[in-house]
Amino acid sequence: MMVAVLKPNATKEQIENLTEWLKGRGLSVHISKGEFYTILGLIGDTSQIDTELIEGLEMVESVKRISEPFKSANRKFHPEDSVIDVGGIKIGGPHFQMIAGPCSVESPEQILAIAKDVCAFGASILRGGAFKPRTSPYDFQGLRADGIEMMLEAKRQTGMPIITEIMNADHLPMFEKVDIIQVGARNMQNFELLKELGMLKKPVLLKRGLANTLQELLMSAEYIMAGGNQNVILCERGIRTFETYTRNTLDLSAVPMLRDLSHLPVVVDPSHASGIARLVEPMAMAAVAAGAHGVMIEVHNDPVNALCDGAQSLTPEQFSKTAGKIRKIREVVTA
Amino acid sequence: MMVAVLKPNATKEQIENLTEWLKGRGLSVHISKGEFYTILGLIGDTSQIDTELIEGLEMVESVKRISEPFKSANRKFHPEDSVIDVGGIKIGGPHFQMIAGPCSVESPEQILAIAKDVCAFGASILRGGAFKPRTSPYDFQGLRADGIEMMLEAKRQTGMPIITEIMNADHLPMFEKVDIIQVGARNMQNFELLKELGMLKKPVLLKRGLANTLQELLMSAEYIMAGGNQNVILCERGIRTFETYTRNTLDLSAVPMLRDLSHLPVVVDPSHASGIARLVEPMAMAAVAAGAHGVMIEVHNDPVNALCDGAQSLTPEQFSKTAGKIRKIREVVTA
Amino acid sequence: MMVAVLKPNATKEQIENLTEWLKGRGLSVHISKGEFYTILGLIGDTSQIDTELIEGLEMVESVKRISEPFKSANRKFHPEDSVIDVGGIKIGGPHFQMIAGPCSVESPEQILAIAKDVCAFGASILRGGAFKPRTSPYDFQGLRADGIEMMLEAKRQTGMPIITEIMNADHLPMFEKVDIIQVGARNMQNFELLKELGMLKKPVLLKRGLANTLQELLMSAEYIMAGGNQNVILCERGIRTFETYTRNTLDLSAVPMLRDLSHLPVVVDPSHASGIARLVEPMAMAAVAAGAHGVMIEVHNDPVNALCDGAQSLTPEQFSKTAGKIRKIREVVTA
Amino acid sequence: MMVAVLKPNATKEQIENLTEWLKGRGLSVHISKGEFYTILGLIGDTSQIDTELIEGLEMVESVKRISEPFKSANRKFHPEDSVIDVGGIKIGGPHFQMIAGPCSVESPEQILAIAKDVCAFGASILRGGAFKPRTSPYDFQGLRADGIEMMLEAKRQTGMPIITEIMNADHLPMFEKVDIIQVGARNMQNFELLKELGMLKKPVLLKRGLANTLQELLMSAEYIMAGGNQNVILCERGIRTFETYTRNTLDLSAVPMLRDLSHLPVVVDPSHASGIARLVEPMAMAAVAAGAHGVMIEVHNDPVNALCDGAQSLTPEQFSKTAGKIRKIREVVTA
Repeated sequence: MMVAVLKPNATKEQIENLTEWLKGRGLSVHISKGEFYTILGLIGDTSQIDTELIEGLEMVESVKRISEPFKSANRKFHPEDSVIDVGGIKIGGPHFQMIAGPCSVESPEQILAIAKDVCAFGASILRGGAFKPRTSPYDFQGLRADGIEMMLEAKRQTGMPIITEIMNADHLPMFEKVDIIQVGARNMQNFELLKELGMLKKPVLLKRGLANTLQELLMSAEYIMAGGNQNVILCERGIRTFETYTRNTLDLSAVPMLRDLSHLPVVVDPSHASGIARLVEPMAMAAVAAGAHGVMIEVHNDPVNALCDGAQSLTPEQFSKTAGKIRKIREVVTA
Repeated sequence: MMVAVLKPNATKEQIENLTEWLKGRGLSVHISKGEFYTILGLIGDTSQIDTELIEGLEMVESVKRISEPFKSANRKFHPEDSVIDVGGIKIGGPHFQMIAGPCSVESPEQILAIAKDVCAFGASILRGGAFKPRTSPYDFQGLRADGIEMMLEAKRQTGMPIITEIMNADHLPMFEKVDIIQVGARNMQNFELLKELGMLKKPVLLKRGLANTLQELLMSAEYIMAGGNQNVILCERGIRTFETYTRNTLDLSAVPMLRDLSHLPVVVDPSHASGIARLVEPMAMAAVAAGAHGVMIEVHNDPVNALCDGAQSLTPEQFSKTAGKIRKIREVVTA
Repeated sequence: MMVAVLKPNATKEQIENLTEWLKGRGLSVHISKGEFYTILGLIGDTSQIDTELIEGLEMVESVKRISEPFKSANRKFHPEDSVIDVGGIKIGGPHFQMIAGPCSVESPEQILAIAKDVCAFGASILRGGAFKPRTSPYDFQGLRADGIEMMLEAKRQTGMPIITEIMNADHLPMFEKVDIIQVGARNMQNFELLKELGMLKKPVLLKRGLANTLQELLMSAEYIMAGGNQNVILCERGIRTFETYTRNTLDLSAVPMLRDLSHLPVVVDPSHASGIARLVEPMAMAAVAAGAHGVMIEVHNDPVNALCDGAQSLTPEQFSKTAGKIRKIREVVTA
Repeated sequence: MMVAVLKPNATKEQIENLTEWLKGRGLSVHISKGEFYTILGLIGDTSQIDTELIEGLEMVESVKRISEPFKSANRKFHPEDSVIDVGGIKIGGPHFQMIAGPCSVESPEQILAIAKDVCAFGASILRGGAFKPRTSPYDFQGLRADGIEMMLEAKRQTGMPIITEIMNADHLPMFEKVDIIQVGARNMQNFELLKELGMLKKPVLLKRGLANTLQELLMSAEYIMAGGNQNVILCERGIRTFETYTRNTLDLSAVPMLRDLSHLPVVVDPSHASGIARLVEPMAMAAVAAGAHGVMIEVHNDPVNALCDGAQSLTPEQFSKTAGKIRKIREVVTA
């Protein structure tokens, strides 16, 4: 359903032409005339109507979509929570999971040691970056294919399913054994990549872009789902605002709002949002209190190399403590 | 402490003049020369130095304040949490309080009925709007002095201290018996008002402006504290972003960040931020999980007048349920 | 005119009650029913209807105001450009003016010297700050009443009308001889101050708040105009965004947009927006090319005191050159 | 050059270790000790140093890069304006060009007719969308390869070089005869795509992302230039802010700022920014007044099909008039 408001100078003939055109697309049209404006209420399946096309008409003041433009992701047409199976681990609905691991995979020893630690402390899915999107071409770009291999070895030894980020559809063959493919914030509207992921059956964790609305996030989920892949996990990771103490502003109202609008699981990444390790625990707890189906937390070991402690990473010991508090908050939420 | 970076074209004489001027203000100056730039490290009490003045110099590339520009509000100089006494009710440090009440005071019966309800369900401070800041001059502007009288009557009958918003220093005489004076988001940088409040001893709840950084919030607290009034409570109530599903974006990372930077109590208003009643409970729970010293929640009764249920207000029954969950989250946080 | 969209679960009785209530306010109501939603088209004078009240109803999905909520400032009801007379100098419609002067009034000699210079180079109105809104209580707060006196002396000697900023309604007596009262960005929604200014006949230059929409700016103009003072000049001075190279982002599309929505004159302040002197000339030229009725430019003299060149101020010589280019751009615009 | 500020609790040993590590990377390190903080001035080639790595260290309070992290795009190392040759048409430095054409290529007749019109009215480069990035998978996605063929035919008949957008590196073979490859706002940080474009010699027009800073735009240019392709044209097209009257906020201060920071040509797209046709002329004029090397304007013909007039497109007649004014503004700028 849509509402179109026509300008005062719209002629009777223009209104009739538009009405006919809309009816030809299967909509019924209700007209309300005011002193200045005329309102058209468009009833029927408006999801195939291109809002910008209508808004482009000279006679049109504004167009408002009342039904959301997303269908597959829409809770209205799928009232129950979706539960997504990740190699036997379930996420969504009543199922809550902790995803943990290092920002970047650095070596087989590093990823394996962290995997064992976070597994012991309650994480059920292992994260790690093999392809790293970096603002500067001069910064470390990740171990790429080798990084994925190291994660797969850690999976073999710990049994944890793994999640890692893809940056280009061409790299898909390397992701064959990856359990969840992550789409990073900068690629949330890389529509060609989303279409390719829509042709898989594999779970996709879709991060909200730095400056993308929740509706745009759901429309990007729709790109994947429209291709046939219903296994989409939404992830809030902070948006860009004017505040400078924190790197980004974690929008936790996204959690109940997305759960309201959609049946898909919603996960929060409190590590990237603030960029500050001591904010990870309170924000992870807050995310769970707000109803998240999971949290994704950066954990780093290697206390020897003081240079790489990671501004936003917890040590395994800190993660252990945080994980305990998260479980208690989760108990309150589900009580 | 500050760092000033000088442009490549700064002459030796300019650098000497500036250095002398800075030394005259009691600072010691450390100079590092690079290929292009020269860095001055300014050591000493830089809080009296006007950053814009230095930045205004033609030879200066940029100035960065390392020590925060706020002193009274700064945790570095006051490591323990401040506890503020509001008519016997304490807030800050280990003390957590729920503030509840209607958006606007509408009648003696309305405010009294709500006061009794929220008191019974665990709120300890009564909120209510008498002076209403409205975007449009044609919208309801509040009952003003009469509204305050009605709140005072509710206070007499329930024993709850009251908080209400001030919009102009001229109105101060009407606030004599008010327990906490609220400064709204739109007046956070009404510096003349802040100075007046600095001359009182009464607690002030200072709301973060829609587009103000945490540092600006703390500088506004500093205006009040510099005048001698140390009883400032900080309040996060949502910032303006590009997202449109929610009215504002509640920035919960402000809670641990403000607690890190300052010793002042931090309260969250989850009702105004989203403008959506069903988001109030999850966001209130999240605020407490993030470490807030209090939440301020809109509660409305009057089920008869269907027109006034308040998009963002809870009914007393909903508040009762939410208050229960908040207490349980608080237990986890303080365990 | 407004459009209200009702939720799928709105009962027939609720819809009837709401319709009756709206009719009781003199509106006619057109109803369009869809599969999920019902749309109410509200025809008539909706400017007195409080959007938030309607949006607050549980049954209401969203409310959209189609006619703008501002009336006095609205071009629809006042098609010709307003021309405002400032002591014989006209601004608005075909009349373009350059306002220039120092950020702060510092001494009688300083303001007089700058006044003479900018007057000689084509400025017709003198600006200068007497009351300075500063983020920090420790920064220079202006010469206050003395500063205004110094400006009045410069007016006597040059004949230029003067503009200076007010921060509190209590200070109005000091502004009796001021030609234009400026409301700064931080006070754009200081509604009590706006109401006081509405009771004067004196021109008011209203600056857009850092995070305020054009509609909010026009609603604040409405506060002044609703009180009887039609002499409002709108001023774009940059909004807060995520960009950090410039202090604020000058929103020049505000110029044609405001001229489209309103009949009031629109002025641009390119000095405060960027905070960088070398951006003032190109942005002033761009403002004029976009259709501004005036520009307000900071000019500083005092080449001796190297400390106070002002990051965003032009020297009189630079202003002279910029003023020449502005005049040429203005010729193209009005050709 | 960088400045690192160390926390009060940094130990002497930690500082020594860090200093050694930095010296090992060829930097010289100047140390300034304050009461609370220690400042390290890092002198030398810091562009290879990963800021986040340093910021990640527990002992580090903050890191500030003083020299910009971009090198190839940096005016400091390339003081003269770059001039880019597009099939004989030059852009940058003293060369100004108008790029015009339809939003989407719709048919051979449509693109040819518009090409002839805009060419006659002064445009020198033809734009047109073949691959369309659309928020919704249900919206029109462009004619893809066929659209490019139609543009090439229009090029053959008019002699105008063409520019069109790429969405995926896999599509590069189809762009062989395209004169300028456009990277859209949503792909500005599609780093894998940028790397591929860096291996070509063909000009690339890089649009600023909706929420990307100027520094990030220049870093994305750096990705292309680091690969060997120096032919990069920067394009400002509006950023996402809280304002809702315009679709995006055109940031014209980006023009002088980018020209200051970089030697690359800067072009402005006033059509997409506002999304409103009647704002295109004033904003195009303003862009030229601000110093842009070119403007990119949407032009649509087809007055018969009232449905497709394009909210943001000019008719050829409107373009003719606007082009005339642009030329006159350009004369003032270059006088």
